[in-house]
Amino acid sequence: MTKPQSAPAGSPEGDDTLGDVGESAVLARIFPRLPAASAQLLGPGDDAAVVAAPDGRYVVTTDMMIHGPDFRLAWSTPHDLGWKAAASNLADVAAMGAVPTALVVAIAAPADSPVALLEGIADGLRDGCADLAPGCGVVGGDLSVSPTLTIAVTAFGDLEGRTPVLRSGARVGDVIAVAGVLGESAAALRLLFEGAVDADGIPDARLAESLRASTAAQLAPQPPIAAGPIAAIAGATAMLDLSDGLALDAGRMASASGLAIDLDPLPTAEALFGGEDHSLLAAFPPGAEIPAEFRVIGRAIAGSGVLVAGVPLEKSGGWDPYREWDSAAG
Amino acid sequence: MTKPQSAPAGSPEGDDTLGDVGESAVLARIFPRLPAASAQLLGPGDDAAVVAAPDGRYVVTTDMMIHGPDFRLAWSTPHDLGWKAAASNLADVAAMGAVPTALVVAIAAPADSPVALLEGIADGLRDGCADLAPGCGVVGGDLSVSPTLTIAVTAFGDLEGRTPVLRSGARVGDVIAVAGVLGESAAALRLLFEGAVDADGIPDARLAESLRASTAAQLAPQPPIAAGPIAAIAGATAMLDLSDGLALDAGRMASASGLAIDLDPLPTAEALFGGEDHSLLAAFPPGAEIPAEFRVIGRAIAGSGVLVAGVPLEKSGGWDPYREWDSAAG
Repeated sequence: MTKPQSAPAGSPEGDDTLGDVGESAVLARIFPRLPAASAQLLGPGDDAAVVAAPDGRYVVTTDMMIHGPDFRLAWSTPHDLGWKAAASNLADVAAMGAVPTALVVAIAAPADSPVALLEGIADGLRDGCADLAPGCGVVGGDLSVSPTLTIAVTAFGDLEGRTPVLRSGARVGDVIAVAGVLGESAAALRLLFEGAVDADGIPDARLAESLRASTAAQLAPQPPIAAGPIAAIAGATAMLDLSDGLALDAGRMASASGLAIDLDPLPTAEALFGGEDHSLLAAFPPGAEIPAEFRVIGRAIAGSGVLVAGVPLEKSGGWDPYREWDSAAG
Repeated sequence: MTKPQSAPAGSPEGDDTLGDVGESAVLARIFPRLPAASAQLLGPGDDAAVVAAPDGRYVVTTDMMIHGPDFRLAWSTPHDLGWKAAASNLADVAAMGAVPTALVVAIAAPADSPVALLEGIADGLRDGCADLAPGCGVVGGDLSVSPTLTIAVTAFGDLEGRTPVLRSGARVGDVIAVAGVLGESAAALRLLFEGAVDADGIPDARLAESLRASTAAQLAPQPPIAAGPIAAIAGATAMLDLSDGLALDAGRMASASGLAIDLDPLPTAEALFGGEDHSLLAAFPPGAEIPAEFRVIGRAIAGSGVLVAGVPLEKSGGWDPYREWDSAAG
């Protein structure tokens, strides 16, 4: 399964494609880069992995990232893709009040992709887990060939004996608070569409690199994963991951809880209608001490829908992949 | 989330595309079709699901199916796709000796796909779970848009207190046995390539339909899921899912267990080198009573590799997605 000591001339290891190397050798090069999971009882290499679930339950969520609608290789490095695939799934686990324990990752890529693409994705998964959810690791995966680069992550979490925090648990009078950035991911994406495309509107890697400092929130988001269990311990009545913008996601919490959410002070348009912040929106009872990771952005009141400083929000905003992605544009 | 009572003229419900309907309405039409899982503590609709793990561990495996390398819409019905996505993952869980409990399913499809495509996949998942692993259901999922129809399933299982059956546990002297068909899936695929393409070699739905009876093993396989836990209870020392043909998969068991496997009597070429049977290959101690689901096909002996009737098998065979799929061919 190891590479031969002497690679053929003109074919250095860094230029190998998936088709040159084959599935077994690709796996042999990727496995050592993946992070180990503390909860792993049996890892990659058999038909399935075995993971510990000490409290007799586990939290599970799945999410796919597709080249085109979800990312562009001209803008995202392979490391970004692995990082973001981990981050967005870890945020869903955290939003239940659970501690992320493990991921399984399925990747489909064109056969002429460099092996370095998969190695970079693996490194991003490793660093994303290490930074955002130490102890969480990759316990299994699958490699396939596809004309469209696709990364599917399923993430697991441990509730540590707590009741899961649903989006439906908010009560009238609760304080609404958020941990993490608001609108920064959407602002960064707009910046990329404005400043990192060439004269024909085609995404450009060099231009994206020059904007790196101000686009990291989109390309390699840092959701506040540890704040999820902290909120649960502090008594959060409801929580969700802000993946589609505050208007849509606060609306989901309001609808599921049978009340209205009044956002005050007025959020920015990007916070309301931009997606992919992966911050945590939580409701706390009026008397609760709000954890330091959270800042108050509103109140749960009788009624329905989302209000901004007392005025009902008409525009629902948010991101619908089937309606809003124009393949010609990206 | 329900459809309007009167659809616009010329746009009957059956012709709706994902782009017409939007993600929320698609989910509302699909969720009711999905099978419920007995182990589900919290199902679809929140950031993550919660699943019971009564013995404090869970088995997890993930696998992706891609249009082109893994299936063709001209040959497989949407129901076939859901069925096969369930069946192939359930077989990996069963091969650990575990009882399948739950699936999460991520689907990416072109925006102009009919909603009926996703409804058919959901029905296939439901019927596959009900027939092959009663009590197993879908606890969560994700919908995305992609130019390439992609189905990613992650499956979970309950070891019911047993030690997982690995591929590495076979011992010299063990009896090698198989539950399920051998080579039928590959024979069916060859039949489709020979008889269900038009004069230009393009897959043809009408021709495939006429071959349905003899191609079901490929399009909607019926792996012996219940035989996995039965083998574990009967004392199987090693087990794996036959996804890449007996030559490659028996070789994996032999290599992981540090011995050789002698297949006797001589298997067919399709059993040796064809993939996707998803039957279960198991090793039993010499004294064990072999369960009725299994038939003896060989012995574990000292040495390495795979032998057929005592003769070492040179050709390794099997399926490598990066090396062997020619997109031009299908």
